[in-house]
Amino acid sequence: MVDETPLHEDDVMLAEPSVEEGRPDDRIDDERMDEENNLKPEFVRAVADALEDEDAQAVYDLVEPLHPADIADLIELMDKEDRAVLAASITDLMSGEVIAELNDHVREDMMEALPAEAVAQIVEQLETDDAVQLIEDLDEADQRAVLAEIELEDRIAIQSALAYPEETAGRLMSRELVAVPEHLTVGDLIDYLRDSSDLPDEFYEIFVVDEKHHPVGTCALSWIMRAPRAIPLADVMKRDQTLIPVTLDQEEVGLMFQKYNLISAAVVDENERLVGQMTVDDVVHIISEEAGEDALLMSGAGDGDINEPIREAYSARVRWLVANLGTALVASLIIAMFGAAIEQLVALAVLMPIVASIGGNAGTQTMAVTVRAIATNQLTRSNTRRILWREMRVALLNGATVATLVGIATALIFTPQLGGVIALAMVINVAIAGSAGVLVPVGFDRLGQDPAVASSVFVTMITDSMGFFAFLGLAVASGIVG
Amino acid sequence: MVDETPLHEDDVMLAEPSVEEGRPDDRIDDERMDEENNLKPEFVRAVADALEDEDAQAVYDLVEPLHPADIADLIELMDKEDRAVLAASITDLMSGEVIAELNDHVREDMMEALPAEAVAQIVEQLETDDAVQLIEDLDEADQRAVLAEIELEDRIAIQSALAYPEETAGRLMSRELVAVPEHLTVGDLIDYLRDSSDLPDEFYEIFVVDEKHHPVGTCALSWIMRAPRAIPLADVMKRDQTLIPVTLDQEEVGLMFQKYNLISAAVVDENERLVGQMTVDDVVHIISEEAGEDALLMSGAGDGDINEPIREAYSARVRWLVANLGTALVASLIIAMFGAAIEQLVALAVLMPIVASIGGNAGTQTMAVTVRAIATNQLTRSNTRRILWREMRVALLNGATVATLVGIATALIFTPQLGGVIALAMVINVAIAGSAGVLVPVGFDRLGQDPAVASSVFVTMITDSMGFFAFLGLAVASGIVG
Repeated sequence: MVDETPLHEDDVMLAEPSVEEGRPDDRIDDERMDEENNLKPEFVRAVADALEDEDAQAVYDLVEPLHPADIADLIELMDKEDRAVLAASITDLMSGEVIAELNDHVREDMMEALPAEAVAQIVEQLETDDAVQLIEDLDEADQRAVLAEIELEDRIAIQSALAYPEETAGRLMSRELVAVPEHLTVGDLIDYLRDSSDLPDEFYEIFVVDEKHHPVGTCALSWIMRAPRAIPLADVMKRDQTLIPVTLDQEEVGLMFQKYNLISAAVVDENERLVGQMTVDDVVHIISEEAGEDALLMSGAGDGDINEPIREAYSARVRWLVANLGTALVASLIIAMFGAAIEQLVALAVLMPIVASIGGNAGTQTMAVTVRAIATNQLTRSNTRRILWREMRVALLNGATVATLVGIATALIFTPQLGGVIALAMVINVAIAGSAGVLVPVGFDRLGQDPAVASSVFVTMITDSMGFFAFLGLAVASGIVG
Repeated sequence: MVDETPLHEDDVMLAEPSVEEGRPDDRIDDERMDEENNLKPEFVRAVADALEDEDAQAVYDLVEPLHPADIADLIELMDKEDRAVLAASITDLMSGEVIAELNDHVREDMMEALPAEAVAQIVEQLETDDAVQLIEDLDEADQRAVLAEIELEDRIAIQSALAYPEETAGRLMSRELVAVPEHLTVGDLIDYLRDSSDLPDEFYEIFVVDEKHHPVGTCALSWIMRAPRAIPLADVMKRDQTLIPVTLDQEEVGLMFQKYNLISAAVVDENERLVGQMTVDDVVHIISEEAGEDALLMSGAGDGDINEPIREAYSARVRWLVANLGTALVASLIIAMFGAAIEQLVALAVLMPIVASIGGNAGTQTMAVTVRAIATNQLTRSNTRRILWREMRVALLNGATVATLVGIATALIFTPQLGGVIALAMVINVAIAGSAGVLVPVGFDRLGQDPAVASSVFVTMITDSMGFFAFLGLAVASGIVG
């Protein structure tokens, strides 16, 4: 199983000492990076101090050894006013890679401050997919101004990407790829690769196409390197490949890469012609974003990016709070129905938030599990009923446990009768929470809505209202009050 | 920028029509898969029906065209009792790939039903990293029994992986890799790869090591294929590489792959010797899991896997609900302090949940943003103060907006004085929510605790208690009630 052996000793040749453009490994550098691979606060402060002193040379010397991804992080960590000054001090370090790694909001901010020609110069350094990401964030007038400054060939590629909807494969794919006809041999292919000057920087698979440019197979580079030169590609390629429709949503693209363990995949148009490729290094960002956004969406935090402008964060979040005002109002109306009972027995007002709050927690748990299972394609029509039944059983166990605890405590502090009422109300509310936690997100999903966005307002409304209603209603019905 | 051209026509040779072991592309097959690339419910039902009819041949014929990842999905979608029967009907389709793709809980269940020799046979089909994943889930006695049945070489590899803590690079890395000394030429390397029979199935980079097996550089296969045979590896390799310490937590591994856009990376032991590699196809699962689990952790849903046994789901979730009982109790105690005021003015009981609930929502929003920013290494010591200030400003805007709405409504329905009290209470509570939403998770993170796990109990406790306290306290202080 293990293959670490460095091979036959007689194969060994003496290499000239090479001069390398690369820098030594900075990423395990203790001076600048902490053990979590973040820039140390002392280092960030040193850069900020040098900026304040207007010592451009000192800034440059500090930043120069950093990896582009760390330069991007450094810019993000700076105060907004300092970012442009920092960028100006390190112009020749501001490579396409730095720009591509920048947070969308920070990049947008910086680009808006630059004239269109400068943005166009940056865009031309980038690969198409990164260029599209930069341009799509600009407003329409800026987009037009920048595109007008770009070379025709790149402009056409970018415009064709922008013609696809946001967050689809067509927008995100890379147009740089290696596609060859199937009648080549391994040797032909290697010769072709050695002769070509304008190949992508890195690629992991060769796409084999027929005369109509339909993909017929893929060859991993590792197979090609191990095959004898005379073997036809048709004999080493894998015919069973995953094709990504150009209009597929990025979330589904991410799930396909995960499911089939892909490194790259062909993107095809509606005529099944090869038009681009998705590579896993871009897809990991999509996967992380899609998986991480559910927590933000469920809490109504919108984009949830700490670099988002305040007015956007405010507008996303306040909308959610106002929607929740509506649900709180429903709960208040139910309490108001029982005003007389509360006046008579103020213990009801003291205890009622417990029933609502535990119900809300139980509902949120089930909802989080359901939303995640829907997002990962684990919960489908085939097993919805089974999962609902499973969650109901968990809810009944949970409800019985907390009801017993609260019931006994209430019986001891107040009266046994009130203990019975609150215990029963909690079992009812936790059971309702369990079913709402499954049915609300599943329902939104079937209606074509994102279950993470809308579910929690509804689930909380149900558990709050039913918590107050069950507790106060049972108190009245049992004759404790009224 | 575009490179899709199939190359010089004179390079073209006629290939013999090849016989391929692969199957035609099933993944865009409309009969079995829906547009989200899930198995259709009708197909799943057809398999279930064939199982019920005990028609093993029909089951086999239905399942045979599926990709291994889809066979794994199918098994997960079956009822628990049917899974073993299904597996028994398709023994020769139950490849290592199917086993590796199965959900942990489902796999554990199935393995527990098999004798140790059968499990050992399955383990020997798997790559070390997948084998480790399977074995680590078994209980200790089963682990020993299975390991005893495994060939020595594989056993040693698996045991050495199990010696590292769970969720570290050492546990997850693959021991299969290609490592060569730096004095080889490109031609030597290609010859070596062609001659070796026991290379990994697929690999994306070659690791170059010195005589002490320290990694000194990596070569992407795409560079090697394009370099002339006589060039020394030392001249094409990248010296600036990201090394992963063998004890690094999987979350940090995932962040490194994202940050530096890695396809594979060398794992080194404490002496900086190359001991394994992590490849991006394994890391995507880690990234998805780590990013997705925050929503589950914040809601106290534990593992949050729909395949988790009910008793485990119950035990994880009830612990959380009981912890929340504690926080609800604190809120109740505060209400109890104001029992006399509520008896005098029952409107207080009707309105108080609004103050608490909106504060809770605002706190959860800020907390979700903060937890995500910590998890993605965007929030560090360098910018905590700036982010706190940012969140306070968002909170004040949010608080002012909802306070105005609720204040006016309360003034109209009840009294202007009560409207003023509730508006002020809301501004105070939303501001407290904003700072707690940042400070609580940041505090837990600095204490070395996972901020996603513990924050929400504390944030809710603060917003509930302060909501009731501010509203009822202001009502008393303002003299509305006695």
